[in-house]
Amino acid sequence: MNPVYTKLGTTIFEQMSARARATGAINLGQGFPDGRGPEDVLAEAARALLEESNQYPPMMGTPALRQAIAAHYAAHQGLDLTPEEVIVTSGATEALASAILALVSPGDEVVMFEPLYDAYLPLVERAGGVAKLVRLEPPAWRITAEALAAVASERTRLLIVNSPLNPTGTLLTAEERALLADFCVSHDAIAICDEVWEHVVFDGAEHRPLIAEPGMRERTVKIGSAGKIFSLTGWKVGWMCAAPAIAAVLAKAHQFVTFTTPPNLQAAAAFGLGKDIGYFETMRRDFQRSRDRLADGLRGLGYSVLPGSATYFLNIDLAASGVDMSDVAFAQWLIEEAGVATIPVSAFYAQDAVTNVVRLCFAKQDATLDGALERMARRP
Amino acid sequence: MNPVYTKLGTTIFEQMSARARATGAINLGQGFPDGRGPEDVLAEAARALLEESNQYPPMMGTPALRQAIAAHYAAHQGLDLTPEEVIVTSGATEALASAILALVSPGDEVVMFEPLYDAYLPLVERAGGVAKLVRLEPPAWRITAEALAAVASERTRLLIVNSPLNPTGTLLTAEERALLADFCVSHDAIAICDEVWEHVVFDGAEHRPLIAEPGMRERTVKIGSAGKIFSLTGWKVGWMCAAPAIAAVLAKAHQFVTFTTPPNLQAAAAFGLGKDIGYFETMRRDFQRSRDRLADGLRGLGYSVLPGSATYFLNIDLAASGVDMSDVAFAQWLIEEAGVATIPVSAFYAQDAVTNVVRLCFAKQDATLDGALERMARRP
Ligand SMILES: CSCCC(=O)C(=O)O
Ligand SMILES: CSCCC(=O)C(=O)O
Repeated sequence: MNPVYTKLGTTIFEQMSARARATGAINLGQGFPDGRGPEDVLAEAARALLEESNQYPPMMGTPALRQAIAAHYAAHQGLDLTPEEVIVTSGATEALASAILALVSPGDEVVMFEPLYDAYLPLVERAGGVAKLVRLEPPAWRITAEALAAVASERTRLLIVNSPLNPTGTLLTAEERALLADFCVSHDAIAICDEVWEHVVFDGAEHRPLIAEPGMRERTVKIGSAGKIFSLTGWKVGWMCAAPAIAAVLAKAHQFVTFTTPPNLQAAAAFGLGKDIGYFETMRRDFQRSRDRLADGLRGLGYSVLPGSATYFLNIDLAASGVDMSDVAFAQWLIEEAGVATIPVSAFYAQDAVTNVVRLCFAKQDATLDGALERMARRP
Repeated sequence: MNPVYTKLGTTIFEQMSARARATGAINLGQGFPDGRGPEDVLAEAARALLEESNQYPPMMGTPALRQAIAAHYAAHQGLDLTPEEVIVTSGATEALASAILALVSPGDEVVMFEPLYDAYLPLVERAGGVAKLVRLEPPAWRITAEALAAVASERTRLLIVNSPLNPTGTLLTAEERALLADFCVSHDAIAICDEVWEHVVFDGAEHRPLIAEPGMRERTVKIGSAGKIFSLTGWKVGWMCAAPAIAAVLAKAHQFVTFTTPPNLQAAAAFGLGKDIGYFETMRRDFQRSRDRLADGLRGLGYSVLPGSATYFLNIDLAASGVDMSDVAFAQWLIEEAGVATIPVSAFYAQDAVTNVVRLCFAKQDATLDGALERMARRP
């Protein structure tokens, strides 16, 4: 058995959701909305299921979805991707797994940023890569030239960058994007960009993909997720986009990781990506309203909420909130005593963790948020 | 980029299907039925899609599906698996990938049998394993004690066994099962059993899972596929079953390969697995009829059909059919000149290939089979 896995725990999101199911806690841990998702996208999935083929679609994805993804990024982010540069995957997690297996060889150094989504590190280690971690800190979680320089070497092959960043809800600044692009170009490194939150941005912020930076078109793998875009997290339809020389290798890994993805869900994702800008604006406005509802409520209870303009998540700073507990202890108290599941942000660090920040998912109906706030009126 | 993938071609199944789509060839290559699949299973998938949650189900699978898989194997194969020993995956390919990543460490020797499904070898190599290949030959494709002894060493950790065997349509004999079990026990090795064709058996043959052999209960990963059982190959709902000590490690790999699988398709698979024995008998009878239709037709055209009692496939022996071409040349001629896509069985060998056998998928409607036979009346 492989030691990467024998030493590994169950993902914190699953642990917290399982405990929430067992205890009846209100689940503001794992990131998923509790609404139904867009009715027209659901209807298209049902139609395709009943009226079209349920046999293997092409390994790279259906032509319709690959075309829709390229067109969507042209319309929304000004990108010039071709459908041939798009590979559909069974969720963004599969895209990460396939890309990391494809691009890492034993001994390759992979630069990643903490807080880091918990899949990255085990995947890199299982692929034989050597993790070089850059530690980001609240409240701004900024990447500096010095921190990047400190992890660089001739063995640097890959960067994994998540923006908008889960758990912080922050986006790369123009300065950071330039810094990362310079770094990749000067080290001849590829960037895997986990941009699953690209549409979930607020306060007028705009997501700018790293692939659009100078020199990055040929050295970026851009990962996206229909589950996140359409608030249907169980669908597990994702994709990775890259220039042909990289895409060819990604496809070779993908064909033996899942091979393909249910055709009816691909049809529905293609339909959804073609929705007009109004849909995405409304989605953002609704989530922003939910974020403000939870943030205002938490502030009213004396919690200090960190700034954040993206993702399904907001964070509270325990020290600034007058809570004299670690994030793990507080999250534990909250789920067991108050009946609210959250995620301690130290779970996003492999070493030297930030331990005073707790993440809450606000992508919920008002009643869910209000119920959680009511329970959180009791403080430890 | 990883050399396992840079040196790899596109899977033969995808190549042939792509060429069939491009040329209008009748596709008897890639293994998928051209019917709709069971209407009640489709209806349940549509119902769950529209009426139940489309958010993340539990990482190990929905309780209903894990329960249904355990109950199904109790009823159909007399097994005593518990739901906790079942992990749902996004197709059997994901189960293979997750199991191989979980169980192989660099330098581990992995025994496999040729003809071999084309995912096995790159996955084992990407995991750092060392392939030890046992070469099987037509017409019986039998495993012998001598051949097994020749690949054994103190570094043997894993066997990958496919039965019923794709492409040959043969099943392990009682003698072979005993041989493999002895081998695993005496080398303290784990068997990954790819049993996706377990229900697709004919001529009164019965699939006996390796996990039921003495000593194997604690050292077997049994892989299954709803796509294959219900003739809905695009659904990508599979699973892997193993005793708790192994299942715990498999789950750790799975959580960062796809994490989970669409909940509505899990609901439909759970429903389908509970169908009564009559459904499975009818499915088998229908496929057997299709096999006989294609086999009889081919014999009528002077082709020699190899014996086979399982899977969607039958094989022709070119030498015995009086075709003086390699399998690759003949398959090429067939698709380009006659307009019928098939799979050359040498694609299932990494070295010293059997080159006189070509595989045809008979899981098609009568009209499709008859059309292919009509085109094949022309011989090279
Ligand atoms: C795959 S479960 C994790 C979902 C998620 O993105 C999160 O909660 O951070
Ligand atoms: C994943 S495509 C291959 C399908 C199949 O099992 C076959 O054709 O052998």
